[in-house]
Amino acid sequence: MTASLKAALDPCSIAVIGASENPNKIGGRPLLYLSRFGFRGAVHPINPNRGEVQGLRAVPRLSDLDEAPDLAVIAVPGEAAVAALDECAAVGVKVAVMMASGFGETAGGKAREAEMAARARARGLRVVGPNSQGLANFGTGAVASFSTMFIEAPPADGPVGIVSQSGAMSVVPYGLLRGRGIGVRHAHATGNDADVTVCELAASVAEDPGLRLLLLYLESIPDPHHLAQAAAVARARDLPIVALKSGRTPAGQAAALSHTGALANEDRVVDAFLEQHGIWRARDTGDLVAAAELYLKGWRPAGRRLVAISNSGATCVLAADAASAVGMPLEPLAADTQARLRTILPSFAATANPVDITAALLTNSRLFGEILPVIAADPSADAFLIGVPVAGQGYDVPAFARDAAAFAAETGKPVVVNAPQPGVAAAFRDQGLPVFASEGGAVQALHQFIAHHELIARAAPAVPAPPRRAPAGPARLLNEAESLARLAAAGLPVVPHRLCRSAEEAVAALDALGAPVAVKGCSRDVPHKSDLGLVHLGLREPDGVARAVAACRDGLARAGAAYEGVIVAAMVQGRRELLIGAHRDPSFGPVVVIGDGGRYVEALPDSQILLPPFGPEAVRAALARLRIAPILAGVRGEPPFALDAFVAAVCAVGRLMEDPAIDSLDVNPILVGTDETACLALDAVIVVRDPAD
Amino acid sequence: MTASLKAALDPCSIAVIGASENPNKIGGRPLLYLSRFGFRGAVHPINPNRGEVQGLRAVPRLSDLDEAPDLAVIAVPGEAAVAALDECAAVGVKVAVMMASGFGETAGGKAREAEMAARARARGLRVVGPNSQGLANFGTGAVASFSTMFIEAPPADGPVGIVSQSGAMSVVPYGLLRGRGIGVRHAHATGNDADVTVCELAASVAEDPGLRLLLLYLESIPDPHHLAQAAAVARARDLPIVALKSGRTPAGQAAALSHTGALANEDRVVDAFLEQHGIWRARDTGDLVAAAELYLKGWRPAGRRLVAISNSGATCVLAADAASAVGMPLEPLAADTQARLRTILPSFAATANPVDITAALLTNSRLFGEILPVIAADPSADAFLIGVPVAGQGYDVPAFARDAAAFAAETGKPVVVNAPQPGVAAAFRDQGLPVFASEGGAVQALHQFIAHHELIARAAPAVPAPPRRAPAGPARLLNEAESLARLAAAGLPVVPHRLCRSAEEAVAALDALGAPVAVKGCSRDVPHKSDLGLVHLGLREPDGVARAVAACRDGLARAGAAYEGVIVAAMVQGRRELLIGAHRDPSFGPVVVIGDGGRYVEALPDSQILLPPFGPEAVRAALARLRIAPILAGVRGEPPFALDAFVAAVCAVGRLMEDPAIDSLDVNPILVGTDETACLALDAVIVVRDPAD
Repeated sequence: MTASLKAALDPCSIAVIGASENPNKIGGRPLLYLSRFGFRGAVHPINPNRGEVQGLRAVPRLSDLDEAPDLAVIAVPGEAAVAALDECAAVGVKVAVMMASGFGETAGGKAREAEMAARARARGLRVVGPNSQGLANFGTGAVASFSTMFIEAPPADGPVGIVSQSGAMSVVPYGLLRGRGIGVRHAHATGNDADVTVCELAASVAEDPGLRLLLLYLESIPDPHHLAQAAAVARARDLPIVALKSGRTPAGQAAALSHTGALANEDRVVDAFLEQHGIWRARDTGDLVAAAELYLKGWRPAGRRLVAISNSGATCVLAADAASAVGMPLEPLAADTQARLRTILPSFAATANPVDITAALLTNSRLFGEILPVIAADPSADAFLIGVPVAGQGYDVPAFARDAAAFAAETGKPVVVNAPQPGVAAAFRDQGLPVFASEGGAVQALHQFIAHHELIARAAPAVPAPPRRAPAGPARLLNEAESLARLAAAGLPVVPHRLCRSAEEAVAALDALGAPVAVKGCSRDVPHKSDLGLVHLGLREPDGVARAVAACRDGLARAGAAYEGVIVAAMVQGRRELLIGAHRDPSFGPVVVIGDGGRYVEALPDSQILLPPFGPEAVRAALARLRIAPILAGVRGEPPFALDAFVAAVCAVGRLMEDPAIDSLDVNPILVGTDETACLALDAVIVVRDPAD
Repeated sequence: MTASLKAALDPCSIAVIGASENPNKIGGRPLLYLSRFGFRGAVHPINPNRGEVQGLRAVPRLSDLDEAPDLAVIAVPGEAAVAALDECAAVGVKVAVMMASGFGETAGGKAREAEMAARARARGLRVVGPNSQGLANFGTGAVASFSTMFIEAPPADGPVGIVSQSGAMSVVPYGLLRGRGIGVRHAHATGNDADVTVCELAASVAEDPGLRLLLLYLESIPDPHHLAQAAAVARARDLPIVALKSGRTPAGQAAALSHTGALANEDRVVDAFLEQHGIWRARDTGDLVAAAELYLKGWRPAGRRLVAISNSGATCVLAADAASAVGMPLEPLAADTQARLRTILPSFAATANPVDITAALLTNSRLFGEILPVIAADPSADAFLIGVPVAGQGYDVPAFARDAAAFAAETGKPVVVNAPQPGVAAAFRDQGLPVFASEGGAVQALHQFIAHHELIARAAPAVPAPPRRAPAGPARLLNEAESLARLAAAGLPVVPHRLCRSAEEAVAALDALGAPVAVKGCSRDVPHKSDLGLVHLGLREPDGVARAVAACRDGLARAGAAYEGVIVAAMVQGRRELLIGAHRDPSFGPVVVIGDGGRYVEALPDSQILLPPFGPEAVRAALARLRIAPILAGVRGEPPFALDAFVAAVCAVGRLMEDPAIDSLDVNPILVGTDETACLALDAVIVVRDPAD
């Protein structure tokens, strides 16, 4: 953890600029909380009009203090806040938490905010905010926040950390978790992220050895290297991260811009990045906290096979449906297990999996406790769902809950409970089991928990490389010959071809390459040739080739494009046209796209994203996620495609994109077939940037 | 409502066979409930060993009663239950509710159950169950059920009806609704549906004029005509139906078979059927009740445009994302509205939509009440989301709730509230507003409510046609010539072709049709020709045609298939190959499938289902849902496809399937192009059934 962010998370002393006697004002709440939640360091109200605020001695100005505080809360608005920030820098405050709104989230406010933050940073002051609700560490009592939530849902220190841009989203998950009895140590809101970003703070919070679950709310990820660093720290510490990244849609991005000044990220790049770093992406507030209890139990899922047990057949059916939908199989229990269950349960009960105890449980509450040890010994399960949708009078619910807890302890495997009735839910929850109100909710949380562990296991080693800056010159197109040459140099298999200036050279190329050939006009001014009549296919005779050269020359002239020759290329056959594309995301850097090719690439998109660095395994996994994956594997008696050369080509493109001078590239089509020699790039466009003059 | 089901829902007198003194036994609960919940009719405990049960005079046998009761609860198990059922039939009981398990849900039990039910039915006795938890009508107090839920969550009569196969799923939604203060009139569980099915009972329940929302839980739909009837009654009464149909997946279907003996339905046929009848399909227990408050408010949504208002920018962003994801646009508020909002809100607040009040609400609670009337007057909204993710001390939450309720009343438009804090939620709920714990939950419920109304508006007039029985003979293939002739007779455009017995006839056909032609071996024994070398394309010369005829003759002989001639067909060009298929679902009857054609129909499925009867509009809507819809509409400068002839062909297939002798058909490919004459069926296979000998 950097020293400056240690002062944010664990300050020794705190000043509140704009301290208020009223604990319901922004400048009053932090004082209330620092006193109420046991902060042991010095607290200094700053108020020019009062000698004492909330029982603490106040001074008029920050400079009146004997010593600069580690952290200053700036609870004054507008220009006064800017002045206070400068004052913090002047006296040597380490971190300022700036609560004032009206900066980067307003039209034209971004530049002013950046300038203000840069000025502070240059003088050694880190800034959280502006537009921040504040920081809250319940491990130390350093609660420099004005959130109302800490009054409404009193804190308890615990193993969860929350780092959020939004104030509300720093405390809504807190409130939901506290309502379920889970302790939360950190609840930080970074606001506009003018200096300290939510990702940088998360990387520091991840170092807290007391944490076992880290939750993030992000509206933008301008600094993925910080998030990668947080992920690396978390992975090393076995700390799962669940992130809710909003601004998925244009409407959401517009709202985020006017909320925290957040700039839009391409959403499926965000998906790919989070996946690469082992971070589970939640889709909604509820999702963010849904599986918290599972993470905190310390279970290590070994697989996805679910065994469901209920006194309701409907719960069995719904759980089986929900599990199947997320790829969790229900395997039949062993014959021996089933035989033992049949000696306990009524004849009409189901014993295969799901296990339906039936309404006989009403007559005999002991059935539940009797079958669980039998099932615990069965080898068919990696995880369990216990459903008690209806119970109460006539049932020994406390015994069910005790039996289920003992079962969970005995198996050491994840157990979720479906219990929509509040009383039944409370009994199971009191025994430490994760309880859900529907079969779907229980299965989804279990699936998230298991799939997240799978994700963490296969996540790429985090390499938080600092972003490389592209040359400052304007973007320019390489022509097809240059593009293909660049790809060939990078190791991609490229169709045999010659760049020819004249008809004579083209005819010679026909001889050399063998008929038939394609003739294509070559110009750095023309990325899309076919619309301009610059592509002539299947030429077998010298006359035809010569005519094609003339037509290309004419076509380019008509388009006002430079004539840089024609490409004469062998006509080759493949079974399918794929594509490889790459571009540079303003935040995430190189992005490689692979997919099905052909005429309808935009209308019928079928592509997957890869973020360099990646290896052949990641490419194969991406291919397996394409819609056309069954065809690549071979259907209707067709042989499978040979894809090693294609996979190697994609890896080569990934490496090529490490060169910051390459802005984007498009290899389309690249043929593939049933043997590796069929893999050939037929056409390509590369856009480069040169150094500025 | 049939008289017999009136006795199920509103009986004048009830006997309980196997009446128990213990209210926690299956035979004790109904007596407890009939007494506790105010049933005014006669109640007769039947018990051979006691003169009095739970304070009521008991008689040993049903035949000891002076008069047959309307309804008898059979609370004895196994063979005693079967005997009791026969006794009910003998004395003239109208409806028996059979609670015993161990019938159709067990291996081999289906036939025995059907026989038992048929015997009762033949004597005028309707049977609910077996394996039924019972019927509960809180409007009359006729609660002939043993569910524990009615002790745990005391009833209140209200506008919701629940009809379920499963006992648990008849009361879990009940419990969730009661927990939210919503009254429930009906909570019926039909069990194995040996006679009265959940759909038939639902059709009767739908007639209750007190209902404003009907919820169904189904594990199987063997009698769609009953469900169609329920839908027709409900539509006439403006009663929305939400259904949870489980057994979506093979694992769920297996579990349903051993729960209620439910047979599997093809899940996407279920989807299409429910949609056709205006029934919203819930995906989980939570879904089933999520939007209940919205239905009960009596709102009439006029469109999908959402306006979101919150004191949290994150709620604004998350609501915008969630709304966009379900196709609900956020349009900017009118300039005038925004100008007025800017006079009220701080300068850094967002006024376009979403409206972000910001944390300034903490300092000034009146902001909320001041902006709502301004927004109410704006024309840009069809529905509203109000998000108060954090409030409490320092905020005037009761005023927010009152203001929001007044706003909802003034606009008459749907309003949902996102309030994850229990105290804040309670304040809004007390004002009669639907409250949710997350932005996603609120938007999803609102979307369901609006999309369901759209669904009801476009639902086909319900035509509960009794299923027509197919001829009993075995299925047999028509050959290609017969199949094409049948299609042509039905009005489909079919490729010009001749059926020829000899090479001479084939050569004459070449002359008549013009070169090139296709020659295909024709045999009722061979549905798939290309694998056997029976398809010869692009023939231009008499020699080639003659050789093709010989090759077809040889190929059929080698395959041991009858030679019924060759089809000589014109070779025609179209821009794309589509397909039309049809089959007969064992429950739902005719199912028509349309989709993209070509080699990879199975590997890359892109098809939609239509249930006859349907018209051209439904076909066009189905085409618009295909993945290839953009291509059909014209992309990359291509002209759109002319699809009137194809749409008419699909409608013709729908009518053709009204003939129960047609088992299935497959028109693949059927060409389409840019003018209507391009629409031609190139190949077809029809499977028919003949009357039994």
